[in-house]
Amino acid sequence: MSRNDTIYALATAPGVGAISVIRVSGTKSFEAVFHIFRKNGKLLDINNIEPYKAYYGEIFDPFPDENLMIDDVIVTFFKAPHSYTGEDSVEISCHGSEFVQQKIMELLWKFDCRLAQPGEFSKRAFINGKLDLAQAEAVADLIAAQSETEHRIAINQLKGGFSNELKGLRSQLVDLTSLLELELDFSEEDVEFAERTKLKELLDTIMKHIGKLTETFHLGNAIKHGVPVAIVGETNTGKSTLLNAILGEERAIVSDIEGTTRDTIEETFNIEGTMYRFIDTAGIRQTAETIEKMGIERTFQKISEADIVIGMIDGTKELDHIYQAARDIINHVNLLKQKLLLLINKNDKIHISKFYDINDDMRWEIKQTVEKNIEKNGGYMCDEYSYSVTGQDLYDIRNLMHYSIMSAKKADDIEDLKRDIKYHTRSMKVGVNDVLVTNLRHYEALKNAAESLEKVSEGIKNNLSADLLAEDLRQALYHIGSITGEVTNGEVLSNIFSRFCIGK
Amino acid sequence: MSRNDTIYALATAPGVGAISVIRVSGTKSFEAVFHIFRKNGKLLDINNIEPYKAYYGEIFDPFPDENLMIDDVIVTFFKAPHSYTGEDSVEISCHGSEFVQQKIMELLWKFDCRLAQPGEFSKRAFINGKLDLAQAEAVADLIAAQSETEHRIAINQLKGGFSNELKGLRSQLVDLTSLLELELDFSEEDVEFAERTKLKELLDTIMKHIGKLTETFHLGNAIKHGVPVAIVGETNTGKSTLLNAILGEERAIVSDIEGTTRDTIEETFNIEGTMYRFIDTAGIRQTAETIEKMGIERTFQKISEADIVIGMIDGTKELDHIYQAARDIINHVNLLKQKLLLLINKNDKIHISKFYDINDDMRWEIKQTVEKNIEKNGGYMCDEYSYSVTGQDLYDIRNLMHYSIMSAKKADDIEDLKRDIKYHTRSMKVGVNDVLVTNLRHYEALKNAAESLEKVSEGIKNNLSADLLAEDLRQALYHIGSITGEVTNGEVLSNIFSRFCIGK
Repeated sequence: MSRNDTIYALATAPGVGAISVIRVSGTKSFEAVFHIFRKNGKLLDINNIEPYKAYYGEIFDPFPDENLMIDDVIVTFFKAPHSYTGEDSVEISCHGSEFVQQKIMELLWKFDCRLAQPGEFSKRAFINGKLDLAQAEAVADLIAAQSETEHRIAINQLKGGFSNELKGLRSQLVDLTSLLELELDFSEEDVEFAERTKLKELLDTIMKHIGKLTETFHLGNAIKHGVPVAIVGETNTGKSTLLNAILGEERAIVSDIEGTTRDTIEETFNIEGTMYRFIDTAGIRQTAETIEKMGIERTFQKISEADIVIGMIDGTKELDHIYQAARDIINHVNLLKQKLLLLINKNDKIHISKFYDINDDMRWEIKQTVEKNIEKNGGYMCDEYSYSVTGQDLYDIRNLMHYSIMSAKKADDIEDLKRDIKYHTRSMKVGVNDVLVTNLRHYEALKNAAESLEKVSEGIKNNLSADLLAEDLRQALYHIGSITGEVTNGEVLSNIFSRFCIGK
Repeated sequence: MSRNDTIYALATAPGVGAISVIRVSGTKSFEAVFHIFRKNGKLLDINNIEPYKAYYGEIFDPFPDENLMIDDVIVTFFKAPHSYTGEDSVEISCHGSEFVQQKIMELLWKFDCRLAQPGEFSKRAFINGKLDLAQAEAVADLIAAQSETEHRIAINQLKGGFSNELKGLRSQLVDLTSLLELELDFSEEDVEFAERTKLKELLDTIMKHIGKLTETFHLGNAIKHGVPVAIVGETNTGKSTLLNAILGEERAIVSDIEGTTRDTIEETFNIEGTMYRFIDTAGIRQTAETIEKMGIERTFQKISEADIVIGMIDGTKELDHIYQAARDIINHVNLLKQKLLLLINKNDKIHISKFYDINDDMRWEIKQTVEKNIEKNGGYMCDEYSYSVTGQDLYDIRNLMHYSIMSAKKADDIEDLKRDIKYHTRSMKVGVNDVLVTNLRHYEALKNAAESLEKVSEGIKNNLSADLLAEDLRQALYHIGSITGEVTNGEVLSNIFSRFCIGK
């Protein structure tokens, strides 16, 4: 046993409070505390400790002089395995004084304990099987949760909802693999235990399940980081002015010089309980060429990641210019997946007759562009006004995008816009037991698993041998297992836990 | 029972940590927690609770849906009177998430509890006799303690060291008063139970005891706020330059224009573990008149409060001017109580021969002023070199003040000065059981008690009647009792506790 074994850290937030809690965990934790704690002036009887009981007494410094009291404290002993870490642990609840905290931790050091590294308590809990990796990550999410929904997702993950889904998936995959491996053992006899079509059916079910989970990442991510809303358009159409108006503060630098906003700016803002992440993109300067040629890759990336795209158009320009700008913006969204709000801005400077011109012609001027967008993204036109994606339901193309003639400088218009944004946001409701993927690491592992399973599926189609199929199945199993930590490696672990706070 | 009865608050520091603790206290605290806590999915049996035991379980929100889990927690019940407040109390140790904290406190509100006011837990502990007032104040001092010595004083006060001294004083005073009151009851019979000389002796003992306690305030205050060091001298002698050099930063505005420093500037600085509070006073402009006539009252006040006075003199001036400046400074300190360090500054600009002139003559040029100072402050000269205060011990007057010819711009000279300051600092050692007065409220109460006893003493001398003496004694008792809160009033209480943090 070395100093590496027993760790301590301040478990409560740093700073001044009425009390603070120091956590000690490891095989020497009880012993260390026995040396520096006394109740009614007497040391505790080491062989007669009641775990989970709050002992009121004092921490004293036994070294220079036994009379030196450090603090009045309450000490609670947690006996392995019934503790957070699964090890013997002690919680010392002392006064919220930094001096006292330091002093107690110095004494623990003298009794062969050491300061914990970030996340080390949770890491031990994981190693001792108290939490799986996804649950440990949920603890960090729970601490960081700022909204009801974030909190609910973290709690569901902590309770093991997500882990259970994965366990289910994993056991189905294990069944599949063992079937194939059985076939492998008997390969010389040329037996085909696993009927390929049935195997394919089972595989499809699993893949659909994984697909559903990965789809939740979009929502999970929106809840955790805000629904992404990209503000795009030519330079000097008022994008930064709009962002400032929405945020109600001078966040973006606004000027009349073209190209003022060089980097994309991201700001979160709450509209009626939903968090949005506004992305003000660099302006796209209009040249003779089309937008595509500009190659402002970052802006395009941001547009493609957004749930809602706000396209800004300068309403003071010629009508032809306005329609062309609208077409350029439409060409860069996927109308079947993203909501587009076109804003013809600078209404305050537009002549009334032009206002009517725009109002009359806008939607139908760009109708062709909308139709192309539908077809490019997998839908098709059924008649002049309707399109379909699945081949069954018909939708009105006039619902695909929404435009308004407004001024980013009018408070009423901004309020209308906020209402429109809220209206076009997909439901963010999360049920009490809903499982959502919110963690990029989990999402990537699921994507990797799906990719391996895709290979299995291809392999079945191409009549590949069982051993090759089994290899890909094992890969999928590996990826699923990496989420909860059933399979893992040191690097991944330290990467995960180093992002925790000390004391957790 | 109303919502006023049971209070809750976050007891740990605000901000992000692994865990945080919510404290609930009052008659309804157990009941409130019973409604929102379950262990293994079951509510606790109200009639079968083990106090002081850590219950692991979950807080849930029973209102919209019993399935809504808020957090994994550990809950500990403290049964009255064995709790901090002396009431039924519960500590809920939850994850260090602000959202979770808020949510749990909202639930407590729904079960008829309310947010505590600052210091309300400690106030209840006082009202229920768990702590006296001086001990409650020690809790606040303990939390704020930043050095070993501050911590030790607070712990001694918390353990009741100070309170016990006061209890002793109070019981002596009660004895005295009852003797006198007995005499009062028999006043018609003209009996004099209390022998006046004996009474006077007892009174002197008590007064000496109080005097010793009030004297510790000077040290206690120096420990809590730093040893006061006043920097004084004519304008443009380099006071601000010196302060900056000591602090090692540009704190005071320095210029060559006379009178740059308008307000007194205070800065704390640590020299080898002792905290000093440097006070840079407004320069005193030299006129034909003496310093007294200038009437810069604030500077004089600051000088009189300092333990150490640094007198700055411009060494580039004429010798006569230098000696006069030295005399002016000496006239404003009490050499028997304060240490004086005279610095003849701007050594870098002084011609070498003048340096020797100053060095030879300085002490004896001002010898007369030093002698007058001794006599003014209650000492007297015994021969040319020695003085005495008590009439027994002889002291060399050359040890009363220390001067050096230096430059505030030379790092070595500043280091020498720091050593001198440290050398001339009275011992700040505080023993394990030493009782020190550190609180202005306590100091004032002791001073008031001393004043009342002074009246009693005068009264005995003047043969005042027992009833008049008893009246003053009762006043003294009142003041002593106000320190620990044996006598007190609502205003004083709320004044004391409102300075505590919420949750304490």
